[in-house]
Amino acid sequence: MSRPDAFAELESRLAQVTDVNRVRRVLGWDMQVMMPPAGAGVRGEQQATLDRIAFDLFVSPETERLLEELRSYEDSLDPASDDASLIRVTRKDFEKTSRIPPELRTEIVKAGTEGFMAWRAARPANDYESFRPHLEHQIELRRRYVELFPESEEPYDVLLDDYERGMKASEVRAVFDRLKEGLVPLVAEAKELYGEDDGTLDRAFPADGQEALSREIVELFGHREGAWRIDPTVHPFASGGGVDDIRITTKYEPVGLESFFATMHEYGHGLYEHQVAKELDRTPLGSGVSLGLHESQSRMWENLVGRSRPFWRFFYPRLQQRFPEQLGDVDEETWFRAVNRVQPSLIRIAADEVTYNMHVILRFELEQDLLAGNVDVRALPDEWNRRMHEYLAVDVPNDADGVLQDMHWGTGTIGYFPTYSLGNVMSVQIWERIKDELPDLDDRLERGEFAPLREWLGEHIHRHGRKFLPQETLERAVGSRIDPEPYLRYLRDKHGAAAPA
Amino acid sequence: MSRPDAFAELESRLAQVTDVNRVRRVLGWDMQVMMPPAGAGVRGEQQATLDRIAFDLFVSPETERLLEELRSYEDSLDPASDDASLIRVTRKDFEKTSRIPPELRTEIVKAGTEGFMAWRAARPANDYESFRPHLEHQIELRRRYVELFPESEEPYDVLLDDYERGMKASEVRAVFDRLKEGLVPLVAEAKELYGEDDGTLDRAFPADGQEALSREIVELFGHREGAWRIDPTVHPFASGGGVDDIRITTKYEPVGLESFFATMHEYGHGLYEHQVAKELDRTPLGSGVSLGLHESQSRMWENLVGRSRPFWRFFYPRLQQRFPEQLGDVDEETWFRAVNRVQPSLIRIAADEVTYNMHVILRFELEQDLLAGNVDVRALPDEWNRRMHEYLAVDVPNDADGVLQDMHWGTGTIGYFPTYSLGNVMSVQIWERIKDELPDLDDRLERGEFAPLREWLGEHIHRHGRKFLPQETLERAVGSRIDPEPYLRYLRDKHGAAAPA
Repeated sequence: MSRPDAFAELESRLAQVTDVNRVRRVLGWDMQVMMPPAGAGVRGEQQATLDRIAFDLFVSPETERLLEELRSYEDSLDPASDDASLIRVTRKDFEKTSRIPPELRTEIVKAGTEGFMAWRAARPANDYESFRPHLEHQIELRRRYVELFPESEEPYDVLLDDYERGMKASEVRAVFDRLKEGLVPLVAEAKELYGEDDGTLDRAFPADGQEALSREIVELFGHREGAWRIDPTVHPFASGGGVDDIRITTKYEPVGLESFFATMHEYGHGLYEHQVAKELDRTPLGSGVSLGLHESQSRMWENLVGRSRPFWRFFYPRLQQRFPEQLGDVDEETWFRAVNRVQPSLIRIAADEVTYNMHVILRFELEQDLLAGNVDVRALPDEWNRRMHEYLAVDVPNDADGVLQDMHWGTGTIGYFPTYSLGNVMSVQIWERIKDELPDLDDRLERGEFAPLREWLGEHIHRHGRKFLPQETLERAVGSRIDPEPYLRYLRDKHGAAAPA
Repeated sequence: MSRPDAFAELESRLAQVTDVNRVRRVLGWDMQVMMPPAGAGVRGEQQATLDRIAFDLFVSPETERLLEELRSYEDSLDPASDDASLIRVTRKDFEKTSRIPPELRTEIVKAGTEGFMAWRAARPANDYESFRPHLEHQIELRRRYVELFPESEEPYDVLLDDYERGMKASEVRAVFDRLKEGLVPLVAEAKELYGEDDGTLDRAFPADGQEALSREIVELFGHREGAWRIDPTVHPFASGGGVDDIRITTKYEPVGLESFFATMHEYGHGLYEHQVAKELDRTPLGSGVSLGLHESQSRMWENLVGRSRPFWRFFYPRLQQRFPEQLGDVDEETWFRAVNRVQPSLIRIAADEVTYNMHVILRFELEQDLLAGNVDVRALPDEWNRRMHEYLAVDVPNDADGVLQDMHWGTGTIGYFPTYSLGNVMSVQIWERIKDELPDLDDRLERGEFAPLREWLGEHIHRHGRKFLPQETLERAVGSRIDPEPYLRYLRDKHGAAAPA
């Protein structure tokens, strides 16, 4: 069956929607990195206008008609083809988006901005009570949102599906229960293994040296010429306007080299977007498929590469050369242990590879309890502190470093947290598969050869964009759905009692 | 009469159109200043999509209906009120924009991009012949455009009106004929006055010093906190997303301080946009009214302030302090003469205050001849060179530094050039008026007090935005329409035979 005219019409309409959405991403980057701060008010209006335009272009009777008309064409195609995928994914997007009444959509957007502002004020003031009404409102909005999808097995599924399409809360619980089981003893073993913090990382690194280092690593990891940029920002993120317009950000603190790991992390996100097939650019398929898969890529470059032995054998001499004053007296082994140290702590974003997941599990559990009404928003700080003690033996001294530490809930982003750990888990599944297919990977990394890894990821994951569901994408790459065992094995081998001292 | 609902509807629609157009400006800035170059292809598509969206939102039966409905409301209002101005200006915008068939619009946009690319390749190759077909096509498109407005007195009026609404070619000719008459002898006198170039400006200034200097002058001239940024670029320009998001650019060359004058020039453009009344932001009235008025502002800060005695009495010690190595042995008088030197030359954008206008007049005359078919595109380079000799006694060695030097004609921007000199002329009319009202202006400038000037401009010109026609705006500020005499007087006093040596 040849391409019907309706397909070209759908493509053209979706190209416009995608253009507007990409522009919104570039403006989001601009707002955080470049915009004079006084421009925020008008910029908010501009973003709202573009949001409404994209919504009206997409959720229209015309889109619905075209999708109907294209059913027989879709059925005639290989489901893995670009055309069939475009129709299938667009239909799913359309069904979900068009279910939301415009008033609720407007309320959600408004509450997101207000909740963010309230959070931004409440955290430094350590003032949970001023934030509480916003969180209550967010939960009520989420409940109204969930009610629009009565066919779902449980409420949390509806929220999770926005970030990890097709994934069920029950599957996440199974993975996380297994993680918890394995991690709790591991945290204790790792504490033993690493001992007291020797302060190796608490050195002052000049910002221009850190910036040169970030540029160096992004060039070494590799990308197409003239398609990337790196800038400093407050909260590191990756963004951009298309596969050849990739913008990552990092943060240069006066002490320590967190910026270096943040850069490797954001490189992973940027590379995923960069290696989506060019044919998918300007379509709704032209970006990473889910937050979980995205995080699997960022964590892979940050941790599986950037905190590995082979990488540091290659890179540590370069690092020492760049910072002779700071690192002249630190040997590779000391450095390697310092960047891998496991130590329970208060703040998720500063947590190590092992304990990070406990922070996520705690949030995932609390989100479900809040949504179901099992935990009252008034009682949330106490419940937070109780579980921090139970899971990580950490005592929370105040809400600023406790329940108020993340912006997510203020902006109404509920259902997002689990994807961080799902990403960790999937990253090692993918890594094991790569090692099967590239048995000399460690040797390559030790020689600073990153192209084989980069290309494997492009070929087996990135190029598909959003063509398949996240778990289908994973399955195509590694042969199975999500499975926590490889990840637990990796953590035990690296940080457990039997790990090389 | 109270505001009808139709007015709120019109406002809301125009706010959206304005949002999209402002976003396009920010993206234009991003493309020239920030975007990774490989992103250009997709960015072009994104800009085209936004252009189409803004066009469809604006040129719609809905806009037409609202404008009709609002006639009696408009008639009930003071024509100088914001509401009446919004309706009046929107009606004029609508009438002009809706006259253009969409196919012609698309062809014009496409030819603009292609012509720009052809020009960009032809200039360095000194290859007029490769560029010629594009120019021929542009002229043909302009003729088709002009035909859409048969009511106009002469073809050139239609083009000029796009940049300087309401101005007629006959009025420009009258101004320019008078300029020519005054300038030709003045060029000879000034040559005498300044003598041979002593090379004062041919010194190397480090880029970081130039950058600090640009920031210093913009802070000294003044603006609201947190609303401006300055970046380096290839061709300096001013842009931004709203009255509190002003972005100017400049160019740091290794030799000379052109960047400093470019920054003062772009400051003038930026200040105009910055001081438009906040109530007009997010309306089609919320920007400078014409290219001519805009240029009057940029040239005022660049020349009437930035090349004046009082300014250099204040600023030269600071400049010397910043560049002691370069300027320690140059006294203020030598510097002042160097930055004011009149010398006929090949390139418009490098020309001095006096000869600049001859470059513009030449282009204005050639544009009319091309449009009327009096000069054939094949014969254009010869005609260019002949007139350069006649007007400036300059021999053009090649087309790259002759007819190919500007991008304007390649992009189809015909009718734009005269606004540069109209701006010069108006700048001195405004300046004389300011001196009447602020008799101590020179003393203020000599003390580095720029606020009175800035505020006068805000109050009498900037805040009106596009409410009135350009010449009405001028008349409100100075009491008369455009008049070349003050400008000629200023030039003669400064650069003529009777000028202080």
